[in-house]
Amino acid sequence: MMILVTYDVNVETTAGKRRLRRVAKSCTRYGQRVQNSVFECVVSMSDYLTLKKELLEIIDEDHDSLRIYHMGSKYSSHIESFGVDNHTDIDGVMIL
Amino acid sequence: MMILVTYDVNVETTAGKRRLRRVAKSCTRYGQRVQNSVFECVVSMSDYLTLKKELLEIIDEDHDSLRIYHMGSKYSSHIESFGVDNHTDIDGVMIL
Repeated sequence: MMILVTYDVNVETTAGKRRLRRVAKSCTRYGQRVQNSVFECVVSMSDYLTLKKELLEIIDEDHDSLRIYHMGSKYSSHIESFGVDNHTDIDGVMIL
Repeated sequence: MMILVTYDVNVETTAGKRRLRRVAKSCTRYGQRVQNSVFECVVSMSDYLTLKKELLEIIDEDHDSLRIYHMGSKYSSHIESFGVDNHTDIDGVMIL
């Protein structure tokens, strides 16, 4: 299944800047950064639960916002991308 | 149906800063800003097509990224929000 992780971390403090880095680092282990604060993660249920736990331990719920969108398994037809696209299509055919 | 609109606009130029404002302005007419560059828009098919056309006329596809995620009609169970949440639940009961 794919989950979309989007976040706004308050970076007015050094601690906030550190939280931002840690959130991105965690998401990078489970998926692809498609925009500054948007990650697409194709994960198992257990990976999803682990990532969510990790992220909730990082963010400051009084100052940061974290949203997780469940895109299901047939997600590729539900996503449109325009302009700059740093994303690699995981299901796409790799031509060597 | 709900669409999720996420974007990264290159603001290194004055023109980029203007594009960013215009993208947000357009999205605001169709939905709710839930994070800095993330809007949730509950729209008809024709509104979706109109918004998409508007946004594609605004962004610079060589420098900006626009992604649209189709969340379908049963979206509320597919969205998790943690921390700061500026979003009003459109389907929620309004207690006066």
